Order: sequence, then structure tokens, then C-alpha cells
Amino acid sequence: MNIAPPTLAVPARSNPDLALQYFAVRNTTEKLCSPLSADDQMVQSMPEASPAKWHQAHTTWFFETFVLTPCLERYQPLDPRYRFLFNSYYKQVETPQAPGGAAHPLRSIRGTFSRPTLEEVCAYRQHVDEQMIRLLESETDTNPELAALVELGLNHEQQHQELLLTDIKHAFWTNPLRPAYVDQPWEEACAEVAPLQWIDYEGGLFEIGHDGGGFAFDNERPRHHVYLKPFGMASRLITNREYLAFMSAGGYSQPELWLSDGWDAVQAGHWSAPLYWELRDGAWLAFTCAGMRPVAWNEPVCHISYYEADAYARWAGARLPWESEWEVVATGLPVAGGFLEGGRFQPRPALNLGGMSQMFGDVWEWTCSPYVAYPGYRPPESALGEYNAKFMCNQLVLRGGSCATPQSHIRASYRNFFPPHTRWQFSGIRLANECS
Amino acid sequence: MNIAPPTLAVPARSNPDLALQYFAVRNTTEKLCSPLSADDQMVQSMPEASPAKWHQAHTTWFFETFVLTPCLERYQPLDPRYRFLFNSYYKQVETPQAPGGAAHPLRSIRGTFSRPTLEEVCAYRQHVDEQMIRLLESETDTNPELAALVELGLNHEQQHQELLLTDIKHAFWTNPLRPAYVDQPWEEACAEVAPLQWIDYEGGLFEIGHDGGGFAFDNERPRHHVYLKPFGMASRLITNREYLAFMSAGGYSQPELWLSDGWDAVQAGHWSAPLYWELRDGAWLAFTCAGMRPVAWNEPVCHISYYEADAYARWAGARLPWESEWEVVATGLPVAGGFLEGGRFQPRPALNLGGMSQMFGDVWEWTCSPYVAYPGYRPPESALGEYNAKFMCNQLVLRGGSCATPQSHIRASYRNFFPPHTRWQFSGIRLANECS
Amino acid sequence: MNIAPPTLAVPARSNPDLALQYFAVRNTTEKLCSPLSADDQMVQSMPEASPAKWHQAHTTWFFETFVLTPCLERYQPLDPRYRFLFNSYYKQVETPQAPGGAAHPLRSIRGTFSRPTLEEVCAYRQHVDEQMIRLLESETDTNPELAALVELGLNHEQQHQELLLTDIKHAFWTNPLRPAYVDQPWEEACAEVAPLQWIDYEGGLFEIGHDGGGFAFDNERPRHHVYLKPFGMASRLITNREYLAFMSAGGYSQPELWLSDGWDAVQAGHWSAPLYWELRDGAWLAFTCAGMRPVAWNEPVCHISYYEADAYARWAGARLPWESEWEVVATGLPVAGGFLEGGRFQPRPALNLGGMSQMFGDVWEWTCSPYVAYPGYRPPESALGEYNAKFMCNQLVLRGGSCATPQSHIRASYRNFFPPHTRWQFSGIRLANECS
Amino acid sequence: MNIAPPTLAVPARSNPDLALQYFAVRNTTEKLCSPLSADDQMVQSMPEASPAKWHQAHTTWFFETFVLTPCLERYQPLDPRYRFLFNSYYKQVETPQAPGGAAHPLRSIRGTFSRPTLEEVCAYRQHVDEQMIRLLESETDTNPELAALVELGLNHEQQHQELLLTDIKHAFWTNPLRPAYVDQPWEEACAEVAPLQWIDYEGGLFEIGHDGGGFAFDNERPRHHVYLKPFGMASRLITNREYLAFMSAGGYSQPELWLSDGWDAVQAGHWSAPLYWELRDGAWLAFTCAGMRPVAWNEPVCHISYYEADAYARWAGARLPWESEWEVVATGLPVAGGFLEGGRFQPRPALNLGGMSQMFGDVWEWTCSPYVAYPGYRPPESALGEYNAKFMCNQLVLRGGSCATPQSHIRASYRNFFPPHTRWQFSGIRLANECS
Repeated sequence: MNIAPPTLAVPARSNPDLALQYFAVRNTTEKLCSPLSADDQMVQSMPEASPAKWHQAHTTWFFETFVLTPCLERYQPLDPRYRFLFNSYYKQVETPQAPGGAAHPLRSIRGTFSRPTLEEVCAYRQHVDEQMIRLLESETDTNPELAALVELGLNHEQQHQELLLTDIKHAFWTNPLRPAYVDQPWEEACAEVAPLQWIDYEGGLFEIGHDGGGFAFDNERPRHHVYLKPFGMASRLITNREYLAFMSAGGYSQPELWLSDGWDAVQAGHWSAPLYWELRDGAWLAFTCAGMRPVAWNEPVCHISYYEADAYARWAGARLPWESEWEVVATGLPVAGGFLEGGRFQPRPALNLGGMSQMFGDVWEWTCSPYVAYPGYRPPESALGEYNAKFMCNQLVLRGGSCATPQSHIRASYRNFFPPHTRWQFSGIRLANECS
Repeated sequence: MNIAPPTLAVPARSNPDLALQYFAVRNTTEKLCSPLSADDQMVQSMPEASPAKWHQAHTTWFFETFVLTPCLERYQPLDPRYRFLFNSYYKQVETPQAPGGAAHPLRSIRGTFSRPTLEEVCAYRQHVDEQMIRLLESETDTNPELAALVELGLNHEQQHQELLLTDIKHAFWTNPLRPAYVDQPWEEACAEVAPLQWIDYEGGLFEIGHDGGGFAFDNERPRHHVYLKPFGMASRLITNREYLAFMSAGGYSQPELWLSDGWDAVQAGHWSAPLYWELRDGAWLAFTCAGMRPVAWNEPVCHISYYEADAYARWAGARLPWESEWEVVATGLPVAGGFLEGGRFQPRPALNLGGMSQMFGDVWEWTCSPYVAYPGYRPPESALGEYNAKFMCNQLVLRGGSCATPQSHIRASYRNFFPPHTRWQFSGIRLANECS
Repeated sequence: MNIAPPTLAVPARSNPDLALQYFAVRNTTEKLCSPLSADDQMVQSMPEASPAKWHQAHTTWFFETFVLTPCLERYQPLDPRYRFLFNSYYKQVETPQAPGGAAHPLRSIRGTFSRPTLEEVCAYRQHVDEQMIRLLESETDTNPELAALVELGLNHEQQHQELLLTDIKHAFWTNPLRPAYVDQPWEEACAEVAPLQWIDYEGGLFEIGHDGGGFAFDNERPRHHVYLKPFGMASRLITNREYLAFMSAGGYSQPELWLSDGWDAVQAGHWSAPLYWELRDGAWLAFTCAGMRPVAWNEPVCHISYYEADAYARWAGARLPWESEWEVVATGLPVAGGFLEGGRFQPRPALNLGGMSQMFGDVWEWTCSPYVAYPGYRPPESALGEYNAKFMCNQLVLRGGSCATPQSHIRASYRNFFPPHTRWQFSGIRLANECS
Repeated sequence: MNIAPPTLAVPARSNPDLALQYFAVRNTTEKLCSPLSADDQMVQSMPEASPAKWHQAHTTWFFETFVLTPCLERYQPLDPRYRFLFNSYYKQVETPQAPGGAAHPLRSIRGTFSRPTLEEVCAYRQHVDEQMIRLLESETDTNPELAALVELGLNHEQQHQELLLTDIKHAFWTNPLRPAYVDQPWEEACAEVAPLQWIDYEGGLFEIGHDGGGFAFDNERPRHHVYLKPFGMASRLITNREYLAFMSAGGYSQPELWLSDGWDAVQAGHWSAPLYWELRDGAWLAFTCAGMRPVAWNEPVCHISYYEADAYARWAGARLPWESEWEVVATGLPVAGGFLEGGRFQPRPALNLGGMSQMFGDVWEWTCSPYVAYPGYRPPESALGEYNAKFMCNQLVLRGGSCATPQSHIRASYRNFFPPHTRWQFSGIRLANECS
């Protein structure tokens, strides 16, 4: 899939950078939807996932609610009921149209919204885009607060691009026909990956968190000190071949390797391999965005939960890194790797370059850090304070981005987070240990 | 909505009646889908319901599986995987394509089948229709067994027409926008309905069950004797106005009026009115196929469970009829009333004609008879034995058809059945009592 | 266990029969509890079961609520809070003590009532017994309504004696130590049972239901006509050996043998044998009231659900009897068989006597009749109307009593009822068929 | 209740300290059980709680499994099946007696174990105590590893003493009679508590974790550096009066005050007050170990979840402390407060002494620190590695002990942990903030 930036005639006098970014991001969403029929865009295959059409509408709702409504004089919504319908979880957004006083519809029934139709949602996107042009033309260069809101909306839409991909991958997998999202030839990466190296790092007092230049989410702030002991970190991600050794050694049947909640999840979910793996006639296949494929043994293992990453690390005599360790290592490294823009939507084997590799892109790396506020953190005032703060419980931090993350969206201080049983994201393993 | 029979050029030499019927029924399904977008046809708003697209595909699958495959030489399926994908519950249908050995996909995930797309399902319908023409042209006039299978397939498709309507009504109701399926002006029926009359019937030995002429389902046979005590039956259905009196008298908060399981259902579901009723600013509205409307007080009450029908009857000092009583009364009456063909999809008030009225059409009438086999019943050999027999437990019989039933589909001996908590069908109340 | 009638000095002037019966029944309950520690009498191993202490208290509550309170002047309860605490499900019993307005405590938390202690519950029994003596001395011979209430209370307590046994059997089975309730040597019945014979019965018009002499529950009335086709009935119950043949033939893995809901129950519960059976080192054991024992192959199969009885019958080319057929056959036969009084609490093999055998006692026999009201049935006024009427839905009728039923409690017209998935009662199979 | 240390004749030649401790701890457990009948000791009122009898048996099992079996030559268990029956969650303990290969019985059915009876469990305790004397007489003074195991067993039993109390409190609360565990007069603490003061602390690099002297659990190690910003901490716990202000201000109905999972818990559990509070006739009562009492407004608020503590802090413009902050503040303070030994089992109001108060005892203080391993942590080899390590996920740390904690059991480095929705422990609130 070609996810190259669009060529658009952007109006002359507007804040050119922001407008260009706006159209690039919005256009990418639509490109990601282009292989999908109206039927496809309706599927919600589990409560945690959302239909593609909903992602298209909700990202638009974000601009309408947080940018156009407060900032554009006399803004007329296309349909005032959308303000209620496409709210995800912002309880402080006032929605007089809500029947029964509900602040927003239940997440689990997003798949039953056939109306507005896809066509109407596309019209909604167009309506908001037109009004955004009006606004970007007139104001953003002189109004840094507005520019910040637009930038937030764009980063929000980029997050939903990744979710749209992981959600549709899950949706297609629940279909017994196992359709492909992208049509691409399968080629087993032939080169062997280099043996895993341990790279040691000094301990001491470090600063982590966003340092102020460029966009960052509130949860990356404030920058603050952490004290680290010396530690080692693996030079690359764990491969499917290495993970298979864990499976073959009975990893899924030895409770002593697992957290208590993790073992319960193994039993309840009958887990015996990563999500999307399937044993057919003695050979392991995996469902990918290009359909069912033989497992590529040199690729990083993917679609595993925190519990599995943790159990693997324990089996391997190591541990997962703290998010602070990860950030210390990643800081200064180039943001290079397999990203959404590559259009492959599948992690790639490590290149044999020496040094630390695969820190960005390919798969999100589970850390052993629970997702909590940084010392001194304060959420933004207003409904936007609900963006991150209220989720700081029962989740673990993941770092580095994946093959479904836009390259421009990721950075060393970026904190992603999911509950520990989550498997449908592109999530994998990098090991750490105490320095020997 | 105009559900008039289609005008089709039916091939000359085929069994003309059966071919005409075939196209009439198939065409009606497509007409019923015509107001629905591809998005709409994806929605499964509860496990018991199915998406419209699935109804279109499954009724086609029925002809392919039970007619074309066994009867048409060298029949080539459009896609052999559909044999698995669109099986509803026939465990004896062999499906070599089934992954994991499953006989058919789980009912609860029908809403996640975005592929085949609506367009592909329409092509599937067309493919099967073309092959059915080939078959109907050549064989049915000389092959009564084949004709019987085709007739069964048509009655099967008519059953799904009703389900398609009740399912899409429920789907639209779960959408906060409450869209309308048909666009029609609302007119409160102005004439008052006549007071309910009790009509007495003699007791004695009767025969019930299908008597052999024309099509009937296996569950209507064999015809057999029943002994009835004298009984009375109400001359018309219970109206919304009468049901409101039950509500106003505290019907939903008096456990002594309810079956034990019924009271549990009231508590668990927070029932305080029929399904689809909503109190807004002191006025009762109801969701109809034409959107939210004020409750029409003279119409029969509808979308109530067996538990509610039973509690109402107890409150009214009466009871529900046995299915045998109902059939004795209905036998010989004309099959007249509001049916699917009327395109209104909403029950109508009783006309003041005197005598027994509203026995057919408008709403299904809950009887107090559990759905069991008639004495001497034997299910058909083969997978078609699963059509009715295996559901003869935990359900109650309903009689008479509804405003969503095709008129040609219903008869005095027809037995519909649903679990007692079911509310999304067009189901209402006719009272009976012991003869005074 | 010796369950012989007690020898009690019954006060001289009272209604001697009723008083004797009263003490015999009350004493039997206490004998049944005598092997149980205070700990044992606390266990509630599933929501449908109740602790033995609760059975002791609730049967006492019944006399207090329905006999002493209305009939004995100046009756003083031992503790007025018990009126609320030991109500099972009578929502019309006024209980001013109920916190939160609840009519009775949730059934599922009966196992958390440690107070009143067993000692206090025994004192409660004694208190009520003393007051009952006062009442029986003075009034019952001249007051037939009171005598009828006492008789109802005694039959109620007999029903709870059976439940007490089946509940404690289940409770002990959930204990990994699998303790025995009675200590008795195991002896495999050595005599072979005779081959199953089919006995044919004429069809025609019959009367069933209680005919008026002696005690009967409201649900056995009114006596009424039924029309039966000629039918055959098996001369004895199905044995464990015969049921094993069904299992060996793959009975639990062929969906075509099962009702749809039954198949779901098999899958959900991982059923592959009767409840309490366990395969150890290739041999089938069963949990009995005397602990784990090898399955006795000539005994009637027991602890099976309606679904299993129905599937077995289908596999055997037969069906289960209608309750009307069963009653027609049983009427006039002696009430002989293995009952609670035998103290064995395990069904016995059929004797080879010729003719119809095992109709009473040993195991309850599933019929294919849903539990519904007889034509013309009216529940009693007052809270006692809740005794049977509100359960007439979603249950099947069982007939004949079991090895845990008091012999004096059962008769040809007696109707027991349980939901179709129920397995913890002593329930088994008698086959019927269409007359050849 | 008098929980004073017992006076026991301890054998002369044994390790006197350890033997004295052993008997003191074991005796305290039995004193705690002395108000409980056999019935009481059976109750398991929710899956997270355990019956008192089980606590008595399991703490004994711990000594048998981890001390007697490996360390006492020719140790003969009283009943080898207890090794399986009273294992809580140690999957690495070999239990050949386990039916079905299970490593230990399901936690949720502990309330169905009526056998062994209470009497038998007491005999089990005595048996193990006698063997422990034999061992303590002979070996512990010369065997530091054994002494460490015994010390662990004693600390383990102390933890279960607290659980036994909180579990029986919950059990009695589910009983509609609301019985009292201890009989003590209620006296509202009359003195007003002093206003809450903020005490500021310097930031910088600190060491936390156990420093090596005396007993500590593995999870308190290793001692390590943390970097803290300057912070403030409240001088005392939040009172019931202060918490009522939060309730009156609509705290339970404003989603913006809550974590997302917390808000879900409020909705699902219909929370509107701390656990055990009840509004009767306009006055707030609370269930205590002495029965229902008016809420004592000056006592610390208690029986609240992490979600409620977090929401209260947000409403109050503050936050909860990090566990590192708490430990820095607590280090060096005397371990004084209301403990289990006081026999009151209810937190006490703060004394007006100035400075930091109530850091130990009375209520556990929720911190905002997820329960994770300290840097460099390694669990013990063997099954004892399961004691703490496998629970390091989805839980929050609590500090300081409660009125149900033995005084000798608590210290500044002690880490307790529970899931964030937990309410049945004696858990309350201390606020922290960023230093102004």
C-alpha cells in the first residue's frame, strides 16, 4: 500500500506547515480506508476494537468538538447529533442531544451504528475539512493555542490510524474466510538475524520525559529525574524462532514462569501461542494483513500480551526493561525502522548492523513499568484532561512504536499503554537484565 | 413500502406455479432489503438477531445445500466456502471447509462477516437463482420430492423475511439516531375499537394439526385428537390502552402477578413497559419501522414477552389460550388481517365487525402451550430433521402470524415458537378463560 | 441409616393421627441431619442447593408462618427476624423486618448465614414443635382447614427431606475428600436384571389428576380428561450398563441426538457421563451417599438431566413418556420400591418379577411433558398460591419418586418438576414408544 | 477482646525466643477464633475471602509444608490429603494426592469444605504444634535457615490473622442479622481532631527498602536509591467527616474526579459511600466488628477502594503519596497506633499531638505506587518464590498497617498490596501534594 503524502492544493495564505500536516494526516486515514468496503468499515469484532467508519468519524468529531466549535465563529455542524454519537469517552463534553442523559454511547455497540452511512461519514469528514481550511487560513499563524489544538487533533488522528489497522486486522481474522487487507506477495526474509547481544549501560541519575521541543502528549511531562542502577539491554527484539523455543520448552504449561494473573489468562484464553498463530498440518501459520502466511522465523515475535512477554523474559533468565531504561537508551538514536508509511504492516527482521537496533518501529516493546503519572504531572484543564490522565491505572507502558505507527508520530519519550492481557496490538519483546 | 408481487418473465416450459412462487418470494426478500445500505445490512444488534445480509445469504444457502447440490447434476457453487459460512445450525450438513472442525460459525459473530460484501452476496443470490431456473425448467413438474424441497425453501425464506424485519427494527432501535426503515406518515387510528367480547366454545374431542392439503411444516403433524373443556376466547387482541391500564395499576411491580422466571426477567431487564416504548416528557412514544411515534392506543399491544402476556392475563382475571383452543377457533376463519404485503409493519386496530377478529396477522398471539412434538411426530430423515425438532424445549407456541408475516405463509395449524423472554417479535395478547 | 418412625409420647387428647404424623415427619428430618456436623450443615455448594441447617429452619418457618401465626392465639415467635430470614420465595408474606424492603434473602447467599447457629436453629425447631403441640391438642380435630394446613406443612417438610439429601450429596461431592454421608458396605447387586420388555397400552380417553381422596398438591388438580394414542412403555428403568452403551457409541458427541439447548449444555458443561461419574485408571466410579464406589451396572442410571434422558431415548429409537401416559400406567400399581425409609439413598436394580416394575421409588422418571397447569387449575388464594403455580414454566415433569423420597409422600398423580439441565436429583430414564 | 500474649510453659532447652514467638502467634490465631462458632468458621462470603477454619488450617499447612516436611526427620502428617486441600496457591508444591492433577483447590469453593470439621482442624493445629516443639527444641538455635523459615511462617500467620478478621467482618455483614464479632460498648470519640496540617519534605536522592536488620519479606528488598522531588504530606488521615463532605459535594456522581476504571467500578457496584455504610432514617450507620454503629465522624475513613482514595484526593486538590515518599516520612517514626492487640478492630481518631501522626496502625494507607519489584529484586528459589513475586501486577501498594495488623508485624518498609477495587480491608486515605 502506498501511504505517500498527498499532493494537495493548500490555500495560499494559511499557516502552510500546519495546513500541509493537516491534509497529510487526514489523507492518510482515507488511504488506509481505501481497501475497505462499507461492510468492512462496520465490523467491531470485540468491545475493545472499533469499526473503521467509527475511527473516521471520531477523529473528525475531535476537530469539530475541540477546534471548530470553540474557535470558529458561527460554526454550523453538519448534524448536531454527531456530537453525542461520535464521542468516545469525554464525559465533560456537553451533549444536550444525548437520550437518557448518557454522555456518550456505549463503546461495545459501535458496531451497530449503520447510520450515518459510510457515505454520510465521508461527507462529515469533508464538511469538517472545509471548515478547518477556513480556520487555518485565518487564524492559526497568529494563535499558538489554536495551533496546539490542531496539532493535538492530528496526533490523535495518527493514534487512530494505528488502531484502525489493528482493529481491521482483528476483524478480518474473526471472519472464517480470513480475507487480506493488503495484497502483497509473501517473501520469507532470507538473511539470518545476528545473535542477540547484551549492551551494558551505566547507572546513575538521569532525566527522562519530553524536553520541550516539538509536540508531545501531556503524559510525557514533566521531565524529571530518575535514578537507575547499571543495566543491560538486548541489542534487538526477540524473534519468532526464539519464541518458538519458549513454546517448545513448555512455556505455556509451567505456572512458575507466569504472573498469577497471567497464568489465569493463559488458562481462561487457552493460550498456547501468540495471537493469530495457527497450527495447520504441523506447520505454524500466522494471520497477517496480507492473509494467512507461514510464520517468518526471523521476524520479531508480535501480538503477545504483557503476561507472555514477562513469562518469556523469566524463562530466558532476564526481565523486561523499565520505561526509564528504555528511554535512556533510545534518546539520541535515529527514529528509523518499519513504520506505517512502509505500507507493509508487518514487523521486519533486525538488520545485522551492530549496536542497538529495532528500537523504533516494527513492534511496540512492553516495559515492566505500570502506566502512572510522572512526578508533578497535571492534566490539562477542560475535557482534554480526560485524554490520558484517567487511564493511569491497570495498564503497562509500551515504547518505540510499531509497523502500524506513523513515523512522524513516534519519539523517545512517547508512552503508549495497554492492559496486560492485550494482544491485538503489534506488541513484542525486548529483554533487559541487571548488569553483570 | 410496496411489496406487490414482481412481474417477471418466467421461462416457458418450467413448472409455472412453482417458478412463479420462487421468483415472487425471492423478489420480496430483495424488496425488503432495498431501503437498507450496505452498512445497515451488517448490523447484528444482539446474538439472537442476524444481519440482513446474512438473511439474504442464508436463504440462498438453503436452496444451494438442500436443492441444487443434491438435485442438479454438475452444480458448481460460486464459492464452496459459503457452504460453511452461511449454515445456520444444521450440524449434519457436511462442510469439509470448516476450520477447526466446526460445523457452522457461531451465531453471535454473524455481524463480523464483512466479506463476502453485499455485492458479492447479491451475486451469490443471482448465481443460485440462475441455477434454480435451470432446475425448475427441467425437473420439478415430474419430480414431487424436488417440488417439496423447493416449497420448503420458499417457506424458509418467508420465515427469514419476517426475521429480517424484526431484526432490522431492533438494529435501528439500538442506534441512538433511531432511523426509520420505512418512510410513512403517522396517522393515529381514530375509530375506537369495540369493547372486548367473550365468545364461548363447546368442549369435547377435537382434531388439530395439519390435515394434509398444501404445504405445512413437519411440526404441524400428525393431525391428532385433543380433549378440550368448554372455554371462552376474547373477540379481539388486547390494545395498548388496555395494557397501559395494567402498567398504571402497578403490573410491573407486583410479583404475585408473575411467573417466578418472569419476575426475575422483569428485575434483571428493568422492564416497565413493552419493548420499544419510551416515556418522553410525560408522553409514551414507541419505536416503529417508521421511527419514533406516539403510542397508538387502539392498536394491539406488541413486542411483549410471554411473561408479560401471562402476567397481564392473570391481572385481568383470565388466562392465555392453549394452542389447541386457538386452532379450534381459527379453523375455517378467513386468513385476513395486516400482513407483510401491506408494507406497514405495524399492527392495526381491530375493526368493529362483530364476532372473532384479528386471529390472523397483526401480532403473533402467545399461547400457554409449551412447544412440544405432537403425538406420533417423527422428524424428517437427513439434516432437514434439524429444521424444527431440536428446538422443542424451553419455548412457547405463538399462533396467527403478524404484520411482518407474508399472508401466503400463515394458516390455522401454523406453529411459531420463541423462548418466553422474547420481545423483539411482533407478539401480543389474546385472552381466554374457563367457560362461565 | 435407620429411618424407622420414632416412638414418641404424643399427648393424649390431640388429633392422634395428625400429631403422630407431625412428630414422625419432624423426627425424620432430624434423623437425616444426625450424621452432619455443624460445619456440614453450612455448605451451599451451588445456588440451586441449600444448606441442611437452612432446610431445618425453613421447614420450621413454614409451620410458624402458615400455621402458628394465623391459627394460634397469642403466638410469640422465638425471634421475629426469622420470619424474613428463612422465607424461601413467598413474596406475599409480609416481613416488616426486611432491610431494604426485600421480601426474602437471596437464595444464593444461604450458605453465608452462620447465625443463627445450628444450636439456635434446633432451639427454633423445638420452640415451634412445642407450640404446634399446643395447637394440635386443642383444635385440629374440629378444624379441617387447620388440619389441611398442617398436612401441607408436613408434605412440604418431606419435600425438603429429599432436597436435604440431594443437596448434601452434592456438597460432599464438591469436597476433594469426597466424604461419605452414610457408612455402609458396598455390595454389587449380583443378579442380572431381566431384559427390557415393551408393554402395550390401549389409547382412548382417560382421566388423570388427583381424584380427591387424601392429600394432594394443588398442581395435581383438577382431575381432567386426556386423549391418548396407543403407546408402549418399558417394563423397567434404563440401567447403568445400558447407558454406558450409549456413551460408548459416542452419544455425547453426536449433536443429531440432542435437543439444541441440550447440545449447548453438553458443550458448556463438558458433559461426557452422568453427574458424579468419574473415570479412574480405566474404571468408572460414581459418588454415592456412601462415598466413591464402582458403578453398579445393574442399577438404574441416575443423576442425568432431561437432555440426557431425551438423547438416550432418541438414540434407542424410542422416546420419553408423557406424564399422562405414565399416570395411566401407574394408577392402581402398589407404591413399592426403594424409598428414603430404606436408608440406602441409592437406586436398586429391577427385580425380575415380570410386568411393569420400578414405577415408584429408586429414581424420578423424566417425562417429556412440560410442567404446566392442568385445565381449569386455580392456585390457592394467599401466599400459598406461590407454592407451585409460579413455577409453571421452563420445567419438565418427573414422576414416581426416588430413593430419597419418603414412601408416604408419593402417589400416581404426584408431579415433580425441574429445569431440563438439572442433574443433582435422583433422576433417570423410562422409555416409551408408539405402539407398533 | 483481650489479645494479650499467652503465658505458656515453653520447653526449656529450645530456642527460647523463637519458641515463645511461635506460641504467641499461634495462640493469637486461636484467640481470634474464640468468638466464632463452627458455623461461623465455614462462611466464605465472596471469592476473595476465606473461611476462618481455612485460615486456621492453611497457616498450619504452611508450617507443615515448608518447615516440618523438609526439616523434621520422619515427620508423619496427620492426614496426607491436607497437603493438597489447604494449599492456597503454591503451584510448585508437589501434591500427589490431588485429584485431576490440580495443584490446589479452587479458591472460590473453600466455603464448601465442611470436612475436615472444625474439631479436626483444631487437632491438625495441635499435631503440627507438637511436632514444631520437637523441632524447635532440637535444631533452630544452630540452624539459621530453619529459624528463617519459622520466622516466615509466623509472619505468614500474622498476615492471615488480619485477613481472618476482615473476612469474618465481611461474612457477618452479608448476614441480614448483622451479628457482632466482639461485644463492646460504643463510645463516640468526643474530642475533635486537629485540622489537617501539611508538612513539607525536601527532595533529593533517598534510599528505601529494608536495610537488613530483622525480618522482612522479599518484596521489601533490595534497598535501593530513589530520586524524589520536594513534596508535602498530610499530618493525619482523612476523617469520616471530611469524606462525607466529598460525598455531599457529589463526589460519587462526577466522572471527572475518577479514573476511568474507577468510574466503571462506581457504576457497576452502585457505590455511593464507603463499604459498610448504610443510610437509615437519614442517619449514616456503619457495620463494625461490634455490629451496626452510627458513623464516628472523627475516625479515619475506612473500607474504601483505591479508586475512592484517588478520587477524594483529586477532589481535595491533592494526590496520594508515592510509596517511596511514605517510607521516607515513616522511617524513624515509632511504630505506634491502633493495632490488632488492642482488640478494638476499629480505627481511632488522630490524637492532637502535632507533627506527623497515624502513620502506623488504624488504617492501611493507599499509595499511588503500583506494586512492582524493586530494582534488582530476585524471588527466592523454590515454591516460596511464589509468596510475593507472582502478584506484582494489577495491584497498588498500601503502607502502615491497620487496627487488624499485629503491631510486631509492621515496619516502615512493609509493603501490602491489593487490587484497586478492594474495599473489605481496613484501608483509608493520607494525602500528599507537590511542595508549594
